[in-house]
Amino acid sequence: MFDPVEKLKEFIRHPSVSTDPSFKAGMAGAKDFVAGILASIGFEVEVVNTDMHPLVLARRQGRPEWPHVIIYGHYDVQPVDPVALWKTKPFEPTEIDGRLYGRGAADNKGPLMVHIAAVAQLLERNPKLPLRITFMIEGEEEMGSPSFPAFLDRYKEELAQADFVFLSDTGIPSENQVVVTCGLRGLMLFDLEVTGSRGDLHSGLHGGVIRNPIQAIAELCASLHHADGRVNIPGFYEDVLEVEPWERQELAKLDTSEEQYRQFLGVPSFHTPPGFTPFEAVRFLPTLEFNGIGGGYQGEGTKTVIPSKAFVKISCRLVPNQDPRRIRERVYQAIADRMPKDVTYRLVDQHQGIPYIVVPPGRSNTPPDQSPILARAFGALDASVAEVFGRQPLYLREGGSVPIIADIKRVLRLDSMMLGLFLPEDNLHAPNESFNLRVMRKGIEVSQRVLAAVAADK
Amino acid sequence: MFDPVEKLKEFIRHPSVSTDPSFKAGMAGAKDFVAGILASIGFEVEVVNTDMHPLVLARRQGRPEWPHVIIYGHYDVQPVDPVALWKTKPFEPTEIDGRLYGRGAADNKGPLMVHIAAVAQLLERNPKLPLRITFMIEGEEEMGSPSFPAFLDRYKEELAQADFVFLSDTGIPSENQVVVTCGLRGLMLFDLEVTGSRGDLHSGLHGGVIRNPIQAIAELCASLHHADGRVNIPGFYEDVLEVEPWERQELAKLDTSEEQYRQFLGVPSFHTPPGFTPFEAVRFLPTLEFNGIGGGYQGEGTKTVIPSKAFVKISCRLVPNQDPRRIRERVYQAIADRMPKDVTYRLVDQHQGIPYIVVPPGRSNTPPDQSPILARAFGALDASVAEVFGRQPLYLREGGSVPIIADIKRVLRLDSMMLGLFLPEDNLHAPNESFNLRVMRKGIEVSQRVLAAVAADK
Repeated sequence: MFDPVEKLKEFIRHPSVSTDPSFKAGMAGAKDFVAGILASIGFEVEVVNTDMHPLVLARRQGRPEWPHVIIYGHYDVQPVDPVALWKTKPFEPTEIDGRLYGRGAADNKGPLMVHIAAVAQLLERNPKLPLRITFMIEGEEEMGSPSFPAFLDRYKEELAQADFVFLSDTGIPSENQVVVTCGLRGLMLFDLEVTGSRGDLHSGLHGGVIRNPIQAIAELCASLHHADGRVNIPGFYEDVLEVEPWERQELAKLDTSEEQYRQFLGVPSFHTPPGFTPFEAVRFLPTLEFNGIGGGYQGEGTKTVIPSKAFVKISCRLVPNQDPRRIRERVYQAIADRMPKDVTYRLVDQHQGIPYIVVPPGRSNTPPDQSPILARAFGALDASVAEVFGRQPLYLREGGSVPIIADIKRVLRLDSMMLGLFLPEDNLHAPNESFNLRVMRKGIEVSQRVLAAVAADK
Repeated sequence: MFDPVEKLKEFIRHPSVSTDPSFKAGMAGAKDFVAGILASIGFEVEVVNTDMHPLVLARRQGRPEWPHVIIYGHYDVQPVDPVALWKTKPFEPTEIDGRLYGRGAADNKGPLMVHIAAVAQLLERNPKLPLRITFMIEGEEEMGSPSFPAFLDRYKEELAQADFVFLSDTGIPSENQVVVTCGLRGLMLFDLEVTGSRGDLHSGLHGGVIRNPIQAIAELCASLHHADGRVNIPGFYEDVLEVEPWERQELAKLDTSEEQYRQFLGVPSFHTPPGFTPFEAVRFLPTLEFNGIGGGYQGEGTKTVIPSKAFVKISCRLVPNQDPRRIRERVYQAIADRMPKDVTYRLVDQHQGIPYIVVPPGRSNTPPDQSPILARAFGALDASVAEVFGRQPLYLREGGSVPIIADIKRVLRLDSMMLGLFLPEDNLHAPNESFNLRVMRKGIEVSQRVLAAVAADK
């Protein structure tokens, strides 16, 4: 008998931080664990090497007329710092009050385990299920999936034959309101490094003569937003997709109040661009965010120094139909225009991701052309969420990014059905990440019903 | 025979970083070294305990009618980071091409050793020299000398009997242009910490809803300067002393050109307030400088986080007659007025120091009332610098701070005669600090002549 919680614990114990080279062994362990578990439930497993971290591609073959679903997930996780704020050890899964704590519990090891368990249990009951299934599990999602597009190109002929992609790497506002994610924001990340003097200087002997690079970077960063919260880059909002009425209507059904959300975040007040509620802003608007800043003396006490360098790490979240390359050009141009000439600077490209939107059947005034099997899957999902969770799902775009979803659309021409499974309190990308085990059990039930429904009708 | 270079090497080997508690043993070692060396040349040594690091007070007693000079120095040094940029080990003194490399070589162990060696050699030649000498050597200068005022209060009765204070803890532009420092900037330091959400947040799931604390701190910092380089705090310049014509005339004698200074700093261009050359700005104007900034993810690659907190370390250099307490009030008020209400913040006071000015005899149109022994000392200094270094010294204010000089004036009512001895290329407060050993030898000769002249006339 397949025990999903025990398997998830095993999975979390592999410290698979993809962005940090010192976690090489953890990455290999997580990859081998996933490959092993899929082989054990009868899949043909292929490990696909890339320049960085391999993908696990596992196939359940079948007759050509059987529907074919691709299940996506990732075995890599975010870094754990600031580690001092964790109440449990990040890579020692700990069950407390119906939650499993550990880095990756919710992003994405738990939700991936939901679908693995669903397939395992479904095939245990019905070994002859007329459904082709391909697990496509990568190890570079938290790095922006640099190897994924090349992988898609290489396996395009085989994978483009599938009907749709099924995954859970998105969130839900509460256990009582499951969200099927219909859109994701894109990404454009870079570092900006500013240099003043050739070396650190004594702030007494030389203070008042040159522009401090911290001052230059502060002035530049301060220029990037209007006082009302909008990003202050010429043309930044030019390609932003108009919001459809059904989208605002779905959003109005959200149980969460703005006050609840504010308290959850723990801020004195919101700071959103005019004309958008916080719930809208996070889904329908792009952002320019500072993920990190550093320069000069950061230790105890004081050091009266003018540092030679300072840096800031910047990320833009993009919405349909913004193009990361165009946004990059515009942001870089604004920086070139605004950076004072008494300092020098350099820009370091980080990763990018295209934003994505899929319109569920029967919603839009301008319905897209969709495969009947995807429409059947959406129908089964709607019904099974209503039964298992006790309420119909909401169809919402969300603020996060899964850049590969847009790549899949672009290369394979496949849409993705995204069943949200993690909760706000799961603390993704933050200390004390956890996964709600009741949501996990319900998710397994929904995933089984959807897969059974997609298969049975054939 | 007293070997000043060997003694200095011994001194540097004690890693006496006063601001970092992990250097406790190095602090004790440096203090014992100084106490030992002064005892060995016949001084009565008293170790004066404080709440932090003890002072060494060493006396050469004598008849009441003998002149009495206090020699000041400090045995503590700056932190060594970024340690990766050092070409030698910071606490392993290394002689290369006539320079001695090591943390503290120039600030202040080398210059202090100049005066110790001068006294040692002078007393060796003339054991009956009619001069009272008190060494007053502290261990908290790089922390802002928190215990020094209380020490002065405690020893006020004895120390106020002295005629003047002699020290070398200031700089000279080149070996051919010795500067007698006639003014020092004051200091007012603090940390500003801004908090947004109660914990770090995923920049996708929540980006666009709150003000990022890095953004808040960047906007605040950007507001603190005008575009022309002046500090943008109401009333900041109100008490700034008018510059006297003789001061600009002295400065005009400087050999260094602005272009040479620019190349030394390694900046594309200067950034000074209007109406002031760089040489003037650094001496006659106050500053507001960012010594360090930090927040969010600073590691390799990316982490798409909205950090909960960000901080900046700020220091103001002050000129006569600015009052650090008034400046603190004004800066704090500006921050309170400008900080957006959707974040919270706190201010942490660091140390302060009053600015100082001493007008050398015969210079000012409004000459101050000075002791004849100080006037004699200034005359001997002028003559001996002219002979030993081959050129008369310049009398200039400088940009650095020795906060205790103002404390000495305030508590003991004594002026200080500051013989500059370190060079721009000595890299104070920065990696690869060193001291020019030829300057050291000449400094010893000058110090001997001054002390002999002050004594002999009696």
